[in-house]
Amino acid sequence: MSEESSRIPAERLESFITRAFVAAGLPDADAHAVARLMVEADLRGSDTHGVIRLPLYVRRIRAGGVNAKPNIRVLADRPSAALLDGDNGMGHLVMKRAAELAIDKAKATGIGWVGVRMSNHAGPAALYATMPLRHDMIGLYFAVGSNNHLPPWGGSESLLGTNPLAVAVPAGAEPPVVLDMAPTVAAYGKVRLKAQRGEAMPLGWMIDRQGKPLTDPKRADEGHLLPIGDYKGYGLSLIIGLLAGALNRAALGRDVIDFVKETGKAANTGQAIAALSIDTFMPADEFKRAIDRFIRDIRNSQKLPGVERIWLPGEQSHAKMLERRAHGVPMPKALRESLDAVARELGIASLA
Amino acid sequence: MSEESSRIPAERLESFITRAFVAAGLPDADAHAVARLMVEADLRGSDTHGVIRLPLYVRRIRAGGVNAKPNIRVLADRPSAALLDGDNGMGHLVMKRAAELAIDKAKATGIGWVGVRMSNHAGPAALYATMPLRHDMIGLYFAVGSNNHLPPWGGSESLLGTNPLAVAVPAGAEPPVVLDMAPTVAAYGKVRLKAQRGEAMPLGWMIDRQGKPLTDPKRADEGHLLPIGDYKGYGLSLIIGLLAGALNRAALGRDVIDFVKETGKAANTGQAIAALSIDTFMPADEFKRAIDRFIRDIRNSQKLPGVERIWLPGEQSHAKMLERRAHGVPMPKALRESLDAVARELGIASLA
Repeated sequence: MSEESSRIPAERLESFITRAFVAAGLPDADAHAVARLMVEADLRGSDTHGVIRLPLYVRRIRAGGVNAKPNIRVLADRPSAALLDGDNGMGHLVMKRAAELAIDKAKATGIGWVGVRMSNHAGPAALYATMPLRHDMIGLYFAVGSNNHLPPWGGSESLLGTNPLAVAVPAGAEPPVVLDMAPTVAAYGKVRLKAQRGEAMPLGWMIDRQGKPLTDPKRADEGHLLPIGDYKGYGLSLIIGLLAGALNRAALGRDVIDFVKETGKAANTGQAIAALSIDTFMPADEFKRAIDRFIRDIRNSQKLPGVERIWLPGEQSHAKMLERRAHGVPMPKALRESLDAVARELGIASLA
Repeated sequence: MSEESSRIPAERLESFITRAFVAAGLPDADAHAVARLMVEADLRGSDTHGVIRLPLYVRRIRAGGVNAKPNIRVLADRPSAALLDGDNGMGHLVMKRAAELAIDKAKATGIGWVGVRMSNHAGPAALYATMPLRHDMIGLYFAVGSNNHLPPWGGSESLLGTNPLAVAVPAGAEPPVVLDMAPTVAAYGKVRLKAQRGEAMPLGWMIDRQGKPLTDPKRADEGHLLPIGDYKGYGLSLIIGLLAGALNRAALGRDVIDFVKETGKAANTGQAIAALSIDTFMPADEFKRAIDRFIRDIRNSQKLPGVERIWLPGEQSHAKMLERRAHGVPMPKALRESLDAVARELGIASLA
């Protein structure tokens, strides 16, 4: 965070985002629902997937690339699985609806799996994987990334995205275990950040189309990201793409548009969520106690020399959430300026 | 494969394994079911997870560590989720039963998720993830590895296994897409192979308890495997452990025994399988045609210089299966000798 960064209370950020979406044409309740989820992303520390995306979201709505008043509907419905059509609405709305449906199905049958098509970028994967937690369920989320930055292993053509996977498991006294990861070594947002800062990228983040290491983030367009574990990360990205994209008749491979550049075009983003009810397996309280014990075994296990602390997946994000709820969301100068520009463009009161 | 390797027709290998398990006390049908799956592992090219494990399996049965005549039963049953108790039977039998139940549930409700406890090592993950394929379903499989070889990220105590994940997606004219991976850079079997051959391991496979690179495979006990993508592979292993182990009241973390050394002890291995029916989303034929097109887009995309071919996950394994079905399973001299020893020990006709 730069020294010129200030803090904004979550509530203030939420009402600003709500105003912006209402001005962009969303119904009040929808604007508020998207704003809440975007602020939750910032609270969780997903700085590249929260309010920073507002200018792009608004640009896409105004360019006709996203439908401000979607009719989200169930295309196919079985007792434990369903397919939704998001009608090109904001991804947050589509995925919220999908998560609710998955949770209902899990209550009734033990597990619910809901896929969506004609959705859009929905922020960080953890937002949705964690929705089942309060119902004593495990959440699993898969999405097709909103850009292709990853080629097949051995290839030089980016036909795959940094397709994220998130799984959230409830704990008792401990924070929930929340894995939220893309199958690439670095997220594309980190590449952009390096470019902004004029820094070189470490070896292993990207290669160029000849397969040579690419460390200049300004040349990112001339290459692509590298998957974790070589062919393994490629396989993960591909499989996530099939589960979240192909199965839902959403865009995958050559059909994925560049949602930053092609603002007027529908992305047909695909996502999927599963909610798995713990009570099939044991009483939820018993499970959470077992998870607490396991978390502590991991945290208190022998450390490598020089390591201060062993973290559980999602633990740092949870700590950030507590801190930011208390002290506000960091607001770097550049971000505030871009939000001010959105306010002017939409004719709404600015954040300040 | 060494020059002293010969080929054994799959049928011959299958009847040898069946004989061995019958002699070890398994009912005929169970012995045959395990033999079929073990040979399928070898046909698929999972040389470290097929018949090579027979001596250990027999040793564990004879030492009382595995129950030859289990009463596999359903502990909890909901319309789309269930928990099985494997009664410490061979993992192959427990997981076959679990996959069948998951498929039945997916037929009835759209998706079926079945977890198992008191199971055992069941061979390669792909065996079970591919079972739903012939029913036009996608299969997902998660397992707790049968040994702890991976510490948390930053830790030096192996509290996690090379917990495998497999996902299988049906195609039409193309082979199915089958991802079968552990979240570590190298499998432990590869380390053993390097030790046998007297070769050094590449950097990045293992580190010692001080965090220093470990390249001598004979010193493998002094260190641990490294996860793919650093903390990401750690997170994957942990989450797979929660889904396959903790949720099923199976062993995880400190409760995981060393199933190679503690042959007389029940492992309480946990596994989970999900079957997801494609027909909720679209007719299976339409889906398979789309997958075929996507596979060809990937395969025919631009290659990096020097790359001959882009492979899909599971494609090389599928090619091996066709080749080995036609020409037999490779049988290196050392493996044959270990099988001869099993035959002598059990008083059955040898493979030759």
